[in-house]
Amino acid sequence: MKYVFGADIGGTTVKLGLFNDQYELLEKWEIPTVVENGGVQIIPDVAAAIRNKMTEKNLTNDDVLGVGVGAPGAVNEDGFLVGGAVNLGWEAFDLKRDFETALGGLTVKAGNDANVAGYGEMRKGGAEGYDDVVAVTLGTGVGGGVIFNGKIITGTNGAAGEIGHIHVEDAETEPCNCGNKGCLEQYASATGIARLARKRLAQDNKPSVLRNKENNTAKDVWDAVKAGDEVAIDVAKKFGYYLGKGLASVANVANPSMFVIGGGVSKAGEILLPYIEPSFYEYAFPPCRVARFALATLGNDAGIYGAAGLILEDTDVK
Amino acid sequence: MKYVFGADIGGTTVKLGLFNDQYELLEKWEIPTVVENGGVQIIPDVAAAIRNKMTEKNLTNDDVLGVGVGAPGAVNEDGFLVGGAVNLGWEAFDLKRDFETALGGLTVKAGNDANVAGYGEMRKGGAEGYDDVVAVTLGTGVGGGVIFNGKIITGTNGAAGEIGHIHVEDAETEPCNCGNKGCLEQYASATGIARLARKRLAQDNKPSVLRNKENNTAKDVWDAVKAGDEVAIDVAKKFGYYLGKGLASVANVANPSMFVIGGGVSKAGEILLPYIEPSFYEYAFPPCRVARFALATLGNDAGIYGAAGLILEDTDVK
Repeated sequence: MKYVFGADIGGTTVKLGLFNDQYELLEKWEIPTVVENGGVQIIPDVAAAIRNKMTEKNLTNDDVLGVGVGAPGAVNEDGFLVGGAVNLGWEAFDLKRDFETALGGLTVKAGNDANVAGYGEMRKGGAEGYDDVVAVTLGTGVGGGVIFNGKIITGTNGAAGEIGHIHVEDAETEPCNCGNKGCLEQYASATGIARLARKRLAQDNKPSVLRNKENNTAKDVWDAVKAGDEVAIDVAKKFGYYLGKGLASVANVANPSMFVIGGGVSKAGEILLPYIEPSFYEYAFPPCRVARFALATLGNDAGIYGAAGLILEDTDVK
Repeated sequence: MKYVFGADIGGTTVKLGLFNDQYELLEKWEIPTVVENGGVQIIPDVAAAIRNKMTEKNLTNDDVLGVGVGAPGAVNEDGFLVGGAVNLGWEAFDLKRDFETALGGLTVKAGNDANVAGYGEMRKGGAEGYDDVVAVTLGTGVGGGVIFNGKIITGTNGAAGEIGHIHVEDAETEPCNCGNKGCLEQYASATGIARLARKRLAQDNKPSVLRNKENNTAKDVWDAVKAGDEVAIDVAKKFGYYLGKGLASVANVANPSMFVIGGGVSKAGEILLPYIEPSFYEYAFPPCRVARFALATLGNDAGIYGAAGLILEDTDVK
């Protein structure tokens, strides 16, 4: 039996997982992410955590097939962190090579965290059994990962799958974090949903449980939708209109068989999907309407599953 | 020296090319496409044309590395024609397998014609030297091909790269051929440009050479742009606004290093590009703005180059 590690580097913690070569998660744990001093401590800390686990389990380098890493920045096909990772204090550097050096020559594969988490969902989560998949992460922002034929499409500089910044509204007057106006992220992220709710409430005086609170979160909105609140349902329809419209553009480019929807907003559950589908079917090119929608199932473990999965990519392991 | 054939099947003619294993075009010719009786004659005709050429050149099966085929329909990763090819009278079938049988066991690779032509431009045309490329074909319609890491992204059922049907205009009232409204193809194809010209002329009475003719073609519009005609320039700006906006969505999904613009409309030349770039840069996510624009250079030979290139895909040949 051989082993694989997966590491999902976030701004607060690094999630780590030890898997066997049959892609079974044996153990998972976390270490804090030390972002001080340009994040100089992160790679040594992760390497030490892996080395310690190897010592604990009596594993030599020969027992370990490799270490997969997801990082919150654009990572290209060669494992180079092209634009740095602001949340970690990292500038651009050769992430794969530096990890390999720190890990004494173990094989390392590295990718963007959203891409890697999407890959995890494709291998072991909500899109298991599909290999042309677009992962959609609805969190503070909207991220994505495009997978074709079981492989992540990174694009030329690791910025493929930036579906949160597809233009979906000409009439938008407020800028997105990226500086553009009318990006999908402005309507379909947690902050986007909260914003849609504020705007809807300001529109008239229709009674709504959302009026009981100053700043409703996306969760408040979905809870109200579940309770049948009509104002909240208007917000859900807007959210779904924009998300379906944006994903239709994605489908026309990538023609996936499955969209797998994850991130904090997706915790609202199956109730999301019927709001997305009508505008998706309205705007997608007919042959691209084959795509189905499913919810992500791995939650916070998607990143370690995906990272480990990169190491098991060209094996026969399902 | 070994040899490769490329076949580009169109609704009127099949273009054929004989290449050596260094990817040099030795000879090209055409045969008519017999679309009668559900296109039943097409494969035997193409196979006979290749067989005859092999006889003429004294080539045995051992001398031929394979035959690449481009067809006007959705072709998946396995060479299956998923949705048939209306222009040829073809229903869905296993294009690769039937060609292999007809060719006595020669290796066949098959793809969608727009994808294959884009692949040709990536290998030997306007995008040579790049391997993350989106090919854009501005003809009667708008087609496309997405290439990542030197390989065509077909999508789950061969419909990836259908960029002509990305939604770019909410206010559109006329339907596209696909049934949707506001598709890129309605503004950036040859027919789309002609339509934009008609609408612009109806808007006011501003003098323009375009008023000398009842039905201006896309070529008339670009000729007038070159002559400095202000009404034609308005049309070019609209065209470029929509095309740049649509390609920005493509860039956010696929993050190419190069867009290569081909098809009949691209014969207008370099003058096209400055009309596309401003709205591309306005709507693309900043890291995806790295993409450059170039014109296709292979013209009608792109298809045979691309088809032959599929056979030479995993070799060291440049």
